[in-house]
Amino acid sequence: MLVTSPLPAPIGVAVIGAGYWGPNLVRNFQSSPNFRLRWLCDLDVERARRVLGGYSTVQVSADLDEVLADPSVDAVAIATPAGTHLPVAMAALRAGKHVLVEKPLAATHEEGLQLVEEADRRGLTLMCDHTYCYTPAVLRIRDLLAAGELGELHFLDSVRINLGLVQRDIDVIWDLAPHDLSILDFVLPPSVRPVAVAAHGADGIGAGRACVAYLTLQLNTGAIAHIHVNWLSPVKVRTAIFGGSKRTLVWDDLNPSQRLSIYDRGVDVASPEELGEEQRRDILVSYRSGDVVSPALTEREALRTMVDEYARAITTGTPALTDGRSGLRVLEILQAASRSLAEGGTMIKLNEGHVA
Amino acid sequence: MLVTSPLPAPIGVAVIGAGYWGPNLVRNFQSSPNFRLRWLCDLDVERARRVLGGYSTVQVSADLDEVLADPSVDAVAIATPAGTHLPVAMAALRAGKHVLVEKPLAATHEEGLQLVEEADRRGLTLMCDHTYCYTPAVLRIRDLLAAGELGELHFLDSVRINLGLVQRDIDVIWDLAPHDLSILDFVLPPSVRPVAVAAHGADGIGAGRACVAYLTLQLNTGAIAHIHVNWLSPVKVRTAIFGGSKRTLVWDDLNPSQRLSIYDRGVDVASPEELGEEQRRDILVSYRSGDVVSPALTEREALRTMVDEYARAITTGTPALTDGRSGLRVLEILQAASRSLAEGGTMIKLNEGHVA
Amino acid sequence: MLVTSPLPAPIGVAVIGAGYWGPNLVRNFQSSPNFRLRWLCDLDVERARRVLGGYSTVQVSADLDEVLADPSVDAVAIATPAGTHLPVAMAALRAGKHVLVEKPLAATHEEGLQLVEEADRRGLTLMCDHTYCYTPAVLRIRDLLAAGELGELHFLDSVRINLGLVQRDIDVIWDLAPHDLSILDFVLPPSVRPVAVAAHGADGIGAGRACVAYLTLQLNTGAIAHIHVNWLSPVKVRTAIFGGSKRTLVWDDLNPSQRLSIYDRGVDVASPEELGEEQRRDILVSYRSGDVVSPALTEREALRTMVDEYARAITTGTPALTDGRSGLRVLEILQAASRSLAEGGTMIKLNEGHVA
Amino acid sequence: MLVTSPLPAPIGVAVIGAGYWGPNLVRNFQSSPNFRLRWLCDLDVERARRVLGGYSTVQVSADLDEVLADPSVDAVAIATPAGTHLPVAMAALRAGKHVLVEKPLAATHEEGLQLVEEADRRGLTLMCDHTYCYTPAVLRIRDLLAAGELGELHFLDSVRINLGLVQRDIDVIWDLAPHDLSILDFVLPPSVRPVAVAAHGADGIGAGRACVAYLTLQLNTGAIAHIHVNWLSPVKVRTAIFGGSKRTLVWDDLNPSQRLSIYDRGVDVASPEELGEEQRRDILVSYRSGDVVSPALTEREALRTMVDEYARAITTGTPALTDGRSGLRVLEILQAASRSLAEGGTMIKLNEGHVA
Repeated sequence: MLVTSPLPAPIGVAVIGAGYWGPNLVRNFQSSPNFRLRWLCDLDVERARRVLGGYSTVQVSADLDEVLADPSVDAVAIATPAGTHLPVAMAALRAGKHVLVEKPLAATHEEGLQLVEEADRRGLTLMCDHTYCYTPAVLRIRDLLAAGELGELHFLDSVRINLGLVQRDIDVIWDLAPHDLSILDFVLPPSVRPVAVAAHGADGIGAGRACVAYLTLQLNTGAIAHIHVNWLSPVKVRTAIFGGSKRTLVWDDLNPSQRLSIYDRGVDVASPEELGEEQRRDILVSYRSGDVVSPALTEREALRTMVDEYARAITTGTPALTDGRSGLRVLEILQAASRSLAEGGTMIKLNEGHVA
Repeated sequence: MLVTSPLPAPIGVAVIGAGYWGPNLVRNFQSSPNFRLRWLCDLDVERARRVLGGYSTVQVSADLDEVLADPSVDAVAIATPAGTHLPVAMAALRAGKHVLVEKPLAATHEEGLQLVEEADRRGLTLMCDHTYCYTPAVLRIRDLLAAGELGELHFLDSVRINLGLVQRDIDVIWDLAPHDLSILDFVLPPSVRPVAVAAHGADGIGAGRACVAYLTLQLNTGAIAHIHVNWLSPVKVRTAIFGGSKRTLVWDDLNPSQRLSIYDRGVDVASPEELGEEQRRDILVSYRSGDVVSPALTEREALRTMVDEYARAITTGTPALTDGRSGLRVLEILQAASRSLAEGGTMIKLNEGHVA
Repeated sequence: MLVTSPLPAPIGVAVIGAGYWGPNLVRNFQSSPNFRLRWLCDLDVERARRVLGGYSTVQVSADLDEVLADPSVDAVAIATPAGTHLPVAMAALRAGKHVLVEKPLAATHEEGLQLVEEADRRGLTLMCDHTYCYTPAVLRIRDLLAAGELGELHFLDSVRINLGLVQRDIDVIWDLAPHDLSILDFVLPPSVRPVAVAAHGADGIGAGRACVAYLTLQLNTGAIAHIHVNWLSPVKVRTAIFGGSKRTLVWDDLNPSQRLSIYDRGVDVASPEELGEEQRRDILVSYRSGDVVSPALTEREALRTMVDEYARAITTGTPALTDGRSGLRVLEILQAASRSLAEGGTMIKLNEGHVA
Repeated sequence: MLVTSPLPAPIGVAVIGAGYWGPNLVRNFQSSPNFRLRWLCDLDVERARRVLGGYSTVQVSADLDEVLADPSVDAVAIATPAGTHLPVAMAALRAGKHVLVEKPLAATHEEGLQLVEEADRRGLTLMCDHTYCYTPAVLRIRDLLAAGELGELHFLDSVRINLGLVQRDIDVIWDLAPHDLSILDFVLPPSVRPVAVAAHGADGIGAGRACVAYLTLQLNTGAIAHIHVNWLSPVKVRTAIFGGSKRTLVWDDLNPSQRLSIYDRGVDVASPEELGEEQRRDILVSYRSGDVVSPALTEREALRTMVDEYARAITTGTPALTDGRSGLRVLEILQAASRSLAEGGTMIKLNEGHVA
């Protein structure tokens, strides 16, 4: 678990963007003893005022420069459209502020890379708000994988579908898949990495961009990860199956009484190394039909844990669990997926490690 | 709905194969007034006897020729491994018997074609036991699509996963996807057809064949159909979402109290034809949030309806709803999927219509 | 539906009690344009300050008199323990303030009656915060019953169980059943009323009070209503079945995608009036197996609607939908249930109508 | 678990009654190596023939005497209406046959007692077909309670509701509650027993008998058991919660993938014995929020296990797990429940132990 000791003085913070996500950041910074919320900044000040309500002492501004000029502001949290992440975050970094950016880190991998390098140069914290990684469920999945409870990962099947807002600028892959990709990045041990991605999709409603899409990722271990994202499903589904060599974990995020189920059921096969070619055709398969355990999880808002992690990273000067580099890795897959989609589903190789 | 009038005299039938599926055929032929079950034939007569139990008057034999020589046998039902379908079915046709074959129709498209042509030549019924097509749920889906209740199909997402028997000779695509492909073939109006397929898969457990697989089909209308088949999932899922322009239907086959749900919820977009290029970027989207209707379905065993349809086809001399040609269309997609899998997910064009 | 026109000037309001429920009232009064929140009052001012957070302009006080002396306070909302409702609410009424009281209205029917009479005398609004009545689901159930969509109510079965806080002063009946009883009071047409109640319960854990209880209510129509309340269930269940002569409605409050389901399934019986005694033994029963409809519901926080109704009642001077008298009716049943429990389950007659 | 060794020679058995339940007995006796099914006996021989189908070597008869006169018949299984159990079973016992009777054992406790005494006198097996007791789930619940895994039972809440056939001769209590009562009798350790019962019910549809009913049982330990049976519910529910001092078990019989869930969640209270009167008011409560375990169950038809137990009892001459006495205990509660229902819900004391 994440543990943070309370800070001597709270970190002054400004939230940039009072749209869909901004209010959640406002609420969580306000309730965290680690932060003191100084500003809510939005081009539309009336919107910012409405978000704060009629009883707040927090300042509003439409002027980013005014906010960044305030010496009581140590850090910013950016919840503006992805296309603006580069200039806003760059301005903040250049003003010496720590930066938290809503996912995706930037509109392109190239832009994201500029931010990572700038933050590195200045020794500032750059963190990506991959909120789902901070849910008690995902933190537990990460622990279970790290402890070898599932064995080796054979497959991951993730479904994230519902009747969603058709976005104006981005397709369903860029809108929803960052969640699944950031979770994958977060829970996998460092030695297991995606090496290629293929994407299929359909528009369906004539929106001019994919509203239904399927991503298939090859991992360096031979495992497969598959992601189904969909804006057109009238039913909401949020499930992921982590199929392991020892156990299989099912995450159903819409079942609060049993979000995680660990199945000690599966197929065992005699190790192929032990078998000759002939025997490999007569595979020795056996089936386990064991118990299912649903571990107790604490109920804690993910955003609250994320905000605490931002404070920890700033205070200690160490990378956040979802730092800029994790945001970059997600961006690389998104871009490759877009290319695959344009090429009719070709498998695109990933080219990790080009950031030192 | 399917209506059959009772026949003057029952059709003499023999079931070939007393393995996994044969007993279900035996039970349903026995309870149908349209048939008189004469033989259960299996190379292992003891197994055949065990299937019939200690109280039966049905004859057993290990000798196919003996069964086919019996003039009281008008028809056969073949539930042997796919690799034997060609010789067994061909022998039956040449003996003048009508033939019902368990899915898939044959081991290859070429073999299936031989059977279709032989049955045509002889004017005999050749039917494929695509059992799921005869469930009350799928029959209703077909009616709803035909009546335009869903509008145009935008996407189909089908999931068929569970802890399944790892087959010795075939991969998970050939084992499970015939169900989904035959349903797709059955419910789509004739003008809507798959034109290409891509497949991704993973072995995972070292079984030497794909145990997890994803098929993506492009339809001639621009719609997408996606199928997830999986032998390694400890949870059983049997759902399909038919996303239409007017309504969306969700089929959950494991929820007997509400197998079908028709959602009058969705996204409406102003027709792209009405809009200029510029407007197409500012798409006019609106959302419906209507009622959900779960139609009452009769509870009838699919196999019983299938058996009745076999009788109807034989008696009237007209093609069965799931005739040999539907079996061929499924085989073509399976073969293309195998090729795609081998080629790393390439989209493979389908080449329909090569049977007159 | 409830419609309120915005008021010329917002109503000044004070929340009394910053414990479990108070923060929800604070949040909803703050977001309502109909109210201006002036004070949060609690004997523990530090707790009140924590509820408001570090950014609020709302005043805090530990002194009820100070709050009631403020002429800008037109109305109060009381969320203190039930035992204090009488003195606190009475002080507010005597200070000329409108009063909203958390359920139950008071600790006893007699105390509740004093409040109702005082409010009547002074022409002030007295409202009971029966929050569940303002959920979109319950409002819809009320409409459906009023419109005769279910026919006559035959039975109501309500289950409200979970691992709950064992209360110090009240048993599970007084803690949880007010929800079910207030809903029953709210949705039934005025001509249908409970006339008797029996209660069974068990302590189980040695808590000194019932932790599991069952209430059976006889209605004047011969219908039955049954309520299961339970603090010891590790699974949370919130369902109610309204069995009607025409249709049956199932409310599953934990299924956000399908809270209400209206079943056109049931048993039809030839009217007993048409039948002789002999025939009544050979009853003519038939079964309907129709569709299920799940109506679309708006998603609106119940407390927000409740707060709007408080404003409406104050502004128009007409009784709130859940006025003091509805609170009294609930109290009468609670007291009778306690008596039944003490007497081992005797059926206790209710004595409605003793408030003019 | 139940273990039976195969018998040297199969037991000749006759099934009496070819109505709703008889066919299930026929099927299971036919598939058991321990039995040889000789006759299916029904006043309506055509119905008996239809049940056997057109391929069976089993004899049919409308004449009970003919069947009982057959020396190859060692045992009978009676699936006729409850009102006929006494004469049919008595005739069989007097003919020296072992007897299995569908639940309830007889129409009254007095009649049941005659059967128990007759079987005792003759040293014959008398068994009651309490089928649910032989499900893998109930067998496991019995083991868990016996092993102390749940601690002491605090409460049992059982719900058995669906759109059921309104019976002509019996109310919903006599139709459905025998299942719950026989399960309760089966899983409780011998030292824990019901001592009183109260029943409430409603007719609703003018059927002339209760179609909805609630039974409350007091146990000698102070625990409570509650049973909800209902013919009018369009939704089918089959759940039981066994609340224990250590753990709580939930049985959901309609969830084949997770029928049993054992919750290590609950409320702990300092033992009341350790506390003074004053402290008992300030109870020390703490909450556990532990894991949930869903044990793997074998999938075996309950009726098959029941049939095996019948063979075991006959062969060994020892009482069946659900012998005549267990049937009597269930009858006693049913009769007391009927009396309570007639008296408006009075708690009726049970008077166990009057059979030596």
